[in-house]
Amino acid sequence: MATAPQTTVASRGRLKRRSSLTSAPVINAGLVREIPPYDMMSEEGLELIEDKTEELLQEVGVEFRGDDEALRIWKQAGGADVKGVRVRFDRGYLRSLIKTAPSEFVMHGRNPQRSATLGGKHVVFAPAYGSPFVSDLDRGRRYGTIEDFQNIVKIAYMSPWLHHSGGTVCEPVELPVNKRHLDMVYSHMRYSDMPFMGSVTTRERALDSIAMARILFGEGFVDSHCVISGNINMNSPLVYDGAMSGALRAYAEANQCPVVVPFVLSGATGPVTIAAATVQSLAEVMVGVALGQLVRPGSPAVFGNFITTVNLRAGSPTFGTAESVASSYVVGQIARRFGVPLRCSGGFTSSLCVDAHSTNESVNSLNAAILCGAHFVLHAAGWMESALTVSYEKLVIDADYLGALHTMVKGVSLEPDQFTTESFEEVGPGGHFFGSAHTLEHYENAFYESELFTTPPYEQWVEEGSTDIAQRANVKWKRMLAEYEMPPLDPAIDEELQAFMEKRKGEMPDIWH
Amino acid sequence: MATAPQTTVASRGRLKRRSSLTSAPVINAGLVREIPPYDMMSEEGLELIEDKTEELLQEVGVEFRGDDEALRIWKQAGGADVKGVRVRFDRGYLRSLIKTAPSEFVMHGRNPQRSATLGGKHVVFAPAYGSPFVSDLDRGRRYGTIEDFQNIVKIAYMSPWLHHSGGTVCEPVELPVNKRHLDMVYSHMRYSDMPFMGSVTTRERALDSIAMARILFGEGFVDSHCVISGNINMNSPLVYDGAMSGALRAYAEANQCPVVVPFVLSGATGPVTIAAATVQSLAEVMVGVALGQLVRPGSPAVFGNFITTVNLRAGSPTFGTAESVASSYVVGQIARRFGVPLRCSGGFTSSLCVDAHSTNESVNSLNAAILCGAHFVLHAAGWMESALTVSYEKLVIDADYLGALHTMVKGVSLEPDQFTTESFEEVGPGGHFFGSAHTLEHYENAFYESELFTTPPYEQWVEEGSTDIAQRANVKWKRMLAEYEMPPLDPAIDEELQAFMEKRKGEMPDIWH
Repeated sequence: MATAPQTTVASRGRLKRRSSLTSAPVINAGLVREIPPYDMMSEEGLELIEDKTEELLQEVGVEFRGDDEALRIWKQAGGADVKGVRVRFDRGYLRSLIKTAPSEFVMHGRNPQRSATLGGKHVVFAPAYGSPFVSDLDRGRRYGTIEDFQNIVKIAYMSPWLHHSGGTVCEPVELPVNKRHLDMVYSHMRYSDMPFMGSVTTRERALDSIAMARILFGEGFVDSHCVISGNINMNSPLVYDGAMSGALRAYAEANQCPVVVPFVLSGATGPVTIAAATVQSLAEVMVGVALGQLVRPGSPAVFGNFITTVNLRAGSPTFGTAESVASSYVVGQIARRFGVPLRCSGGFTSSLCVDAHSTNESVNSLNAAILCGAHFVLHAAGWMESALTVSYEKLVIDADYLGALHTMVKGVSLEPDQFTTESFEEVGPGGHFFGSAHTLEHYENAFYESELFTTPPYEQWVEEGSTDIAQRANVKWKRMLAEYEMPPLDPAIDEELQAFMEKRKGEMPDIWH
Repeated sequence: MATAPQTTVASRGRLKRRSSLTSAPVINAGLVREIPPYDMMSEEGLELIEDKTEELLQEVGVEFRGDDEALRIWKQAGGADVKGVRVRFDRGYLRSLIKTAPSEFVMHGRNPQRSATLGGKHVVFAPAYGSPFVSDLDRGRRYGTIEDFQNIVKIAYMSPWLHHSGGTVCEPVELPVNKRHLDMVYSHMRYSDMPFMGSVTTRERALDSIAMARILFGEGFVDSHCVISGNINMNSPLVYDGAMSGALRAYAEANQCPVVVPFVLSGATGPVTIAAATVQSLAEVMVGVALGQLVRPGSPAVFGNFITTVNLRAGSPTFGTAESVASSYVVGQIARRFGVPLRCSGGFTSSLCVDAHSTNESVNSLNAAILCGAHFVLHAAGWMESALTVSYEKLVIDADYLGALHTMVKGVSLEPDQFTTESFEEVGPGGHFFGSAHTLEHYENAFYESELFTTPPYEQWVEEGSTDIAQRANVKWKRMLAEYEMPPLDPAIDEELQAFMEKRKGEMPDIWH
């Protein structure tokens, strides 16, 4: 699949912040890394993990529950042994199927400048996904609504450091469970112009999402371009339920992108050792990606990873921990061996508020995403309370830090103008570089300028109310929403989208749980 | 220099916390990394930086101000061109001198179990250094006192994750400037039994520090073992003042360890480009380490690094930034080329309080230290407000995170018992691993158990007062101080130390600034 021309990040990863001058958002279609990934494990170690994975696939396999069509596909395929709902796989079979998945492809936005490349040296950041609660400093923690959903879409659209509108950025719980996917997909389409994710909670809702994408992008375009993706979360360990595998098939049939993600909580939904948890995760994702390729060879897919630890006293998941960071490095190496774009890690935390705890874990997992070589970083901003809550303040704090990561991935430039023996001559021992010619020449793009990670001198800070970063972030997201302007959308398309939603809503009774 | 036998970290980097059972601290003489460092830059890039460094040393050189003895040594040495206070160096000369510095050596504690190895796969963590202020949630920010100093020494002694007592853990500003070094060195000796740092603010104070070390360890032992080190901060750019080079010589003469650290604020005390800042830093540290080797070939030395960015609008330093992290990776690679143990990075931040800002930067710089291959991490815990303040709460939060790093550096174990196809058979698709045989066998040492980075379910958290991690840390450091018990010290040695201090104090009038 060809890579479309795309807008990459300006001058050494720094973009001028324009949001305070104009509401037109700065367009940044993804970052391009210039530093190598971190290879933590030896090739022998990776081979051992792959070998154990093939053993697991062959001896234990996975179950497809409530999806006869998937079982039929596996039976017909030839390399799998199907007994009831259990499917076991011949050694090497899934790996051979996965070979048809593209190593790089474009996720199109309705604004072509926003189309983002997945794979290779490209990294795409998207906001948190799936929280029933939202929180902010003014109103505290509460159930999410469609208004919150749209606010998060707007903030992500305004941020220069998020490249993707995400999917279920929060659950709009006031809407019926079986209809809210229509409002969510419409909100991404209407309030943003970036790539986005559709519904996966049933096959039908996935099909609705794709149908809406066809209205927005045109039927022919959708058949040959990736415009929507679905986050296929399996029921780890080793189970695909019919909703998920049905949705996976829907995306693949339409040549759209399933992001296939295990859910391995080491010690709960997976083994307590990281090596074995990695084996399970790899087995689960191989099955999903291979199924997509059987359904439509060459269709795009993302290799997902979600391995984290559990507090073994409380049974609750923990994030950004040493073990989960180490597992990300390994999974990154494995994904490169398969040549499929990787979704890994994000701004995770189990903390219940925006504090020194939340950031520790979020930075750890975001840094692991970058260094492990992830291409798609879902949950890159806003995630809190082990995914139960999206915080407005954390959303903009994380996004500000994603800006720093845009700079970090550029490494250290060795261009001739970066060295300056003359400047040392000019300044001399004991001198100051502030006004030197070399500084004046380079200062404008020298460093990433964070808006939130800055503090005045102590006395001024006390005078101004001793605010912490969460309070500064509270001011910032409100300003972003106040400055937001809707991107233009063809009224005919808008009308068609609304008519589709109305029709679909009219065909179903409301379901609430 | 031989590596003495030492206590390493128990079972996969996890140590049982015993502080709530008994006041005897858990002894951990440093962590041993089992993961490779991150090589960000190509060999050609590193060679280019070294080449530019040799050019700077030859064409511009450094100045030794107020240290005729140092100038005399350079003149006599042969490979340097001395004009006034300016010293320029022949290409390759400093590199050849540095070859006699040991690549690995032991920093002895008065408790032999606390002796820590510097170099190779070993990493040693020490608390923050040099802050005039301290802060805690109860009393806010205030000038440090000798009581604060001793409290910090005690907390570091109690923590299983700090391996070194540090140096000027805060400035005891109520004591005369010219005498407080005696009280500081004595406090490390009396209230801890770990390795520590002596004074560097004048050559005389360095000599006092070494004299006290001779009383504690015995004269003969000190001449052949490293028992004290001095943090030699140069006046960047390119100046050694007499206090620093005099102190450096004092440590080297005594076969003790100068930790030679540039102070490069990119855009202020160094060039605004990271490549050139790295060149400067390397030049400065090469000069200092080489001087120590000229004074006493084979004496221990640490290759220091301190490159950070500046907020170019405000002129104030910024920490844990993308650029400083990238520079750490490069410096780590360079230090490995020189084969001298590296001091790099720490728990840096410019934040004025313990919040989501402070941790972002601290975690970034601590992670960079680990991945760049640093051996000695000064400022690993407690640093706040760009080094102006040490926070009691941040001290224990950072220390808790250092525990996680002990686990991270172990990577992912691939021992046969870490894999478990049987366990997947036992649990089956859709099952739960919590009670599986494999989990029961491994859960005890499976994950790093953080005391502070844990939260109860939301409702319980609200009921318990919605505390953030800083409030939990406040409870923790008070408990640590309450449980502290002084390690035993031979009363004859104690008496001799006190007599030395009394004598020295009597010989000088009080100086206050």
